[in-house]
Amino acid sequence: MATENLSAFLYRKRDKPPRCDIVLENRPIHEPGDKEVLLQMHSVGICGSDVHMWMDAHIGDYAIKNPVVSGHEAAGKVLKCGKNVTHLKAGDKVAIDPFYPLSTDEYCKTGRYNLCNHYYFCSCPPDHGTLSRFYTHQADYCYRLPNSLSYEEGALIEPLSVAIHACRRAKVTLGHMVLICGAGPIGLLSLLVAKAMGASQVIITDLNQNRLHLAATLGADHVINVEQNKSPQETAMHIEQLLGGMPDRTIECTGAESALQTGIYATISGGCLALVGLGADTANVPLVNAAVREVDIVGVMRYCNTYPTAIQMLASGQINVKPLVTHRFPLEKAEEAFHVAKAGEGIKVMIKCDPNDQNP
Amino acid sequence: MATENLSAFLYRKRDKPPRCDIVLENRPIHEPGDKEVLLQMHSVGICGSDVHMWMDAHIGDYAIKNPVVSGHEAAGKVLKCGKNVTHLKAGDKVAIDPFYPLSTDEYCKTGRYNLCNHYYFCSCPPDHGTLSRFYTHQADYCYRLPNSLSYEEGALIEPLSVAIHACRRAKVTLGHMVLICGAGPIGLLSLLVAKAMGASQVIITDLNQNRLHLAATLGADHVINVEQNKSPQETAMHIEQLLGGMPDRTIECTGAESALQTGIYATISGGCLALVGLGADTANVPLVNAAVREVDIVGVMRYCNTYPTAIQMLASGQINVKPLVTHRFPLEKAEEAFHVAKAGEGIKVMIKCDPNDQNP
Amino acid sequence: MATENLSAFLYRKRDKPPRCDIVLENRPIHEPGDKEVLLQMHSVGICGSDVHMWMDAHIGDYAIKNPVVSGHEAAGKVLKCGKNVTHLKAGDKVAIDPFYPLSTDEYCKTGRYNLCNHYYFCSCPPDHGTLSRFYTHQADYCYRLPNSLSYEEGALIEPLSVAIHACRRAKVTLGHMVLICGAGPIGLLSLLVAKAMGASQVIITDLNQNRLHLAATLGADHVINVEQNKSPQETAMHIEQLLGGMPDRTIECTGAESALQTGIYATISGGCLALVGLGADTANVPLVNAAVREVDIVGVMRYCNTYPTAIQMLASGQINVKPLVTHRFPLEKAEEAFHVAKAGEGIKVMIKCDPNDQNP
Amino acid sequence: MATENLSAFLYRKRDKPPRCDIVLENRPIHEPGDKEVLLQMHSVGICGSDVHMWMDAHIGDYAIKNPVVSGHEAAGKVLKCGKNVTHLKAGDKVAIDPFYPLSTDEYCKTGRYNLCNHYYFCSCPPDHGTLSRFYTHQADYCYRLPNSLSYEEGALIEPLSVAIHACRRAKVTLGHMVLICGAGPIGLLSLLVAKAMGASQVIITDLNQNRLHLAATLGADHVINVEQNKSPQETAMHIEQLLGGMPDRTIECTGAESALQTGIYATISGGCLALVGLGADTANVPLVNAAVREVDIVGVMRYCNTYPTAIQMLASGQINVKPLVTHRFPLEKAEEAFHVAKAGEGIKVMIKCDPNDQNP
Repeated sequence: MATENLSAFLYRKRDKPPRCDIVLENRPIHEPGDKEVLLQMHSVGICGSDVHMWMDAHIGDYAIKNPVVSGHEAAGKVLKCGKNVTHLKAGDKVAIDPFYPLSTDEYCKTGRYNLCNHYYFCSCPPDHGTLSRFYTHQADYCYRLPNSLSYEEGALIEPLSVAIHACRRAKVTLGHMVLICGAGPIGLLSLLVAKAMGASQVIITDLNQNRLHLAATLGADHVINVEQNKSPQETAMHIEQLLGGMPDRTIECTGAESALQTGIYATISGGCLALVGLGADTANVPLVNAAVREVDIVGVMRYCNTYPTAIQMLASGQINVKPLVTHRFPLEKAEEAFHVAKAGEGIKVMIKCDPNDQNP
Repeated sequence: MATENLSAFLYRKRDKPPRCDIVLENRPIHEPGDKEVLLQMHSVGICGSDVHMWMDAHIGDYAIKNPVVSGHEAAGKVLKCGKNVTHLKAGDKVAIDPFYPLSTDEYCKTGRYNLCNHYYFCSCPPDHGTLSRFYTHQADYCYRLPNSLSYEEGALIEPLSVAIHACRRAKVTLGHMVLICGAGPIGLLSLLVAKAMGASQVIITDLNQNRLHLAATLGADHVINVEQNKSPQETAMHIEQLLGGMPDRTIECTGAESALQTGIYATISGGCLALVGLGADTANVPLVNAAVREVDIVGVMRYCNTYPTAIQMLASGQINVKPLVTHRFPLEKAEEAFHVAKAGEGIKVMIKCDPNDQNP
Repeated sequence: MATENLSAFLYRKRDKPPRCDIVLENRPIHEPGDKEVLLQMHSVGICGSDVHMWMDAHIGDYAIKNPVVSGHEAAGKVLKCGKNVTHLKAGDKVAIDPFYPLSTDEYCKTGRYNLCNHYYFCSCPPDHGTLSRFYTHQADYCYRLPNSLSYEEGALIEPLSVAIHACRRAKVTLGHMVLICGAGPIGLLSLLVAKAMGASQVIITDLNQNRLHLAATLGADHVINVEQNKSPQETAMHIEQLLGGMPDRTIECTGAESALQTGIYATISGGCLALVGLGADTANVPLVNAAVREVDIVGVMRYCNTYPTAIQMLASGQINVKPLVTHRFPLEKAEEAFHVAKAGEGIKVMIKCDPNDQNP
Repeated sequence: MATENLSAFLYRKRDKPPRCDIVLENRPIHEPGDKEVLLQMHSVGICGSDVHMWMDAHIGDYAIKNPVVSGHEAAGKVLKCGKNVTHLKAGDKVAIDPFYPLSTDEYCKTGRYNLCNHYYFCSCPPDHGTLSRFYTHQADYCYRLPNSLSYEEGALIEPLSVAIHACRRAKVTLGHMVLICGAGPIGLLSLLVAKAMGASQVIITDLNQNRLHLAATLGADHVINVEQNKSPQETAMHIEQLLGGMPDRTIECTGAESALQTGIYATISGGCLALVGLGADTANVPLVNAAVREVDIVGVMRYCNTYPTAIQMLASGQINVKPLVTHRFPLEKAEEAFHVAKAGEGIKVMIKCDPNDQNP
């Protein structure tokens, strides 16, 4: 067994962005506890929140005090199982759900464990993330991938989970017209998920023409480059004209106040607006318009119960997420990878943690 | 048959409140069409929106141009049925659902006819209301009352319907703790409905101590006189302390921005906030707080499918709405009745339309 | 305007099958009422129930006394609109929902109008069907087809509606494994719908190898030719092995007692079995097995609220139903068409009612 | 601390009923593990399944091989907490959920842990039950009772949980008419729960006049002593006449084939029949009648997520379960208690485990 465990830490260093340095260091390999597995990490995607944490040294109330390993979109290979682990064995390819509850409260018992307040979340300080050669995780939250799936597909299950949870919370179903605000990774994955759930038409908005182009390639029926000089009502009307009707569901992935307003005006009476993107703490929104038309506004807190579904979707070929990976870097070049992710040139940047296998 | 049909019209008269005059005039008695019934009106409650229309000559986009008969919380006796009416007969006591769709669109077909855009609504210009001796209505939207129920109970089914629809949309159920903001008629009826649906504790807020006193009499477990100097977060914390936990559901009946904010902060993660009261078109609200805790925000547009349920509730004695009626006036004194309603001294003011029967 | 209206009537003639004769006769062209449309019929599919009615002169309690026009899977062109019809105009291509309620009871008001007891249903005695040159129908139940769709696709929306309603009632959703018993038209359409709703794997059973072959062509992941010598438990186990897990949902389209038993044993705990096929009035089923594993058993009564969804699905290309049409006959050869449908050689037999346009 | 731990074991002894002997023996007191609590038992109710196990030495596949402690409806006092237990402390009064999952499978993660196949269930061989002076249990499945509730109310939460789960699965709600078949403890508790969830009328059937009398006392609107010479259809019609309409929901607590048939015929179209009572493995039922009227048939496997709700219901006084306790015996007289329970004279027999406190 290896004794070195190169890992990409964030060290808080200064009071202006980037507030953290990305430091490659060895950290101890943790022997798996009774219900844990030791994993050889293979692929870890960089999320917007990882970049955010690097720049700001905090997200909301979660601040970096001591150095923390980054990365939470991850897949790897099981090296060793704790003695109570029965559903996995050494050699299994697994996707890692980076979130797991630490107690069994009422949210856990009722199936909404994402709302449990006492949890572990990879790379959310002080919980270490997955950007390492070796990483030990709760076995119940590692999901075996069939051999037909790649590690990168496994790593992409994390952002795909956000999209699944958003489309579930929005109750997307057969024949729906769906508006997605924002064509970043979550918006694009929401497009794929909405179609897989039966949406007949999806329209997607962004300010970036490259992203809209990719959205069209991935199956968006309409794309809109949101014009800054249009009011939310005007944008809503434009959407209605393109679709030939108001969207049944809106998945808001930007957090921008104007997009929230557009989302309310655009959504059909009796429809639903799901809030995925997070912006300013408070927003000025046309609540009366939503209320009298019974447009429900629902939140999306990460995800729960998505991994088995996602694996079924990928294994059966319902959706293809591979085109989202636009860049790859070895773990040793983690900092370069973060710079590319920050620049927003591509869609998903993957870091390859296994020095002997840099394949997808 | 009577040939006179005294009715309380609103005539637009001036540019400052009260913009309308309340004028008692005879209007023709309409022979019922094939699917209609002619009713002798008995009791009509005054709603806040009736007072609003009297004062402002409009509600939202609905403005008084030609004189319109007021009143939409009503019950009466069937005098004559159209030839296709089979579920009613002369002499039946009925509650009137003042809203009915005029086309069979997708909302009607899917059971959400309250969202249909093409409708008749009593007293909403240009549709005449029920404040008359005689009134003709769509038979399918007249519901037979058992003899054990009074006409006033029948008239109260309209505001009770708003409360039922609000509690349904909020998904109130067994063991819930419920926060109700506002102890006016809708808030008080929501209290009764929430309890009937299984809420184990209800807390209700208002600025008016008399209303809170009545709320306690009607079964509220806690009442709060909202202090102006407390922030929404502080009020939310006070509510949590009184209940011994955060409310599962909030029914917001005021429309005040501060109450919307309190409603979001107060509601438990995974809970639901129903918007019943309507305030300013836009509101500044802590949407991120709602989103990351998956507090759903749902609208309440009038009601649908509530009358049969309400009749079951009243007939079986599950709830008692009689204490809400605090004042009664004969139709001839309609203007005085409106003044009392506007003063907000009582809870529900009833106008008695049958000169030969002024009983409840 | 044409004055002749050739129509295919069923005349009850004898006491053994075929109990009816198929007789081509002219019948009067009905001028459309205020809310009706007069249609020039184009394509009408033959349903198993049409054949059943021809053979037995009754289905359940619905018996042919006076001659009745057959056919209820239909599409045609609007010739003339009643004066209150606003959503259609002459020249529109429409699909006909053959079922509409005749009163506005609580089922209609709550969105389950398929459960209304007072209805018109094409070809269900004494209500005449659509196998005519010209036919007049309730406008609210005629749905405009985009030009990109063919009349035959319009006619297929009726059986497609059964499949949509079945999959909705079974709550098929993302990542589900679905078992469909029976590969006739409803089973095959349920396969397409289940996939469109997000099913990741569908397994379908039948006794007819040709149908299973078509099922595989249409996207079934597994097909099983049910062996007569296997017990329901054994078949259930075979299904589990093929899928790599128990199906989440079962759509039972045969009505056979053994298939009902297989459906219960096969469905995963917490799953759902939808009853589409109707067999003997009573069945001997392992209810305790269903009860302790919370396998819900839900019925499927025709459909409701399916036409707009189906049109979205077809227009957007989510599903392709055209391969189901295996035979076509002009109206004049209706009897021959019924013989072919009865022989079960093909899947869907279409009767072409417009002598000037026999295209799909 | 006490060193003796008198416990009521079932020993398999013979091949005809009673197949077991009830033997009082000391068993070791288990020190609580990190997530466990040691309890001083106070009150344990006798369930029909306890009697069944005593008589038959097995229930379904669960057979007594080695002696097993009986009892699973229980409440006690916390004596000692494992080191990871934070929500309880010594001295707390708790109700014990006798069922808890032993792994975190998909059922647990999605909130239906009652369907998990790998579980502990008190008194289900080989898992020991609660009929002891001292008993150690998983802390997460012990629920703190407010001081206002008695230990017997705590013990009754177990059968109350079955009723809550049944009414939830049947989707009982506001204004429903509910039919309950069987007036034993589960039927009576279902009556209380259905009313608390908003049922406006409940009708209950049994063969035992004393139980029906108690049902009326507890709030049943109608009781029917099922006559043996009436067919299921006739009984269904009788029920409809008494209620003035068909019941919206049926809670079947007998398992008798005739009651299953009655339940289907009686339930309104679009309604639901919940299967609580378990009879023969297979039953002959009118499935076509259920299917074409969309009467859903749903199973009830114990319960999940009921304890916090039940505590809210009892603490707030929504329901009063105390009248169900008709007999009490000290632990030393456990055998006599079982004989009384078997005789069916009373409703609920309680065994008092604390020699120093035999109060309710």
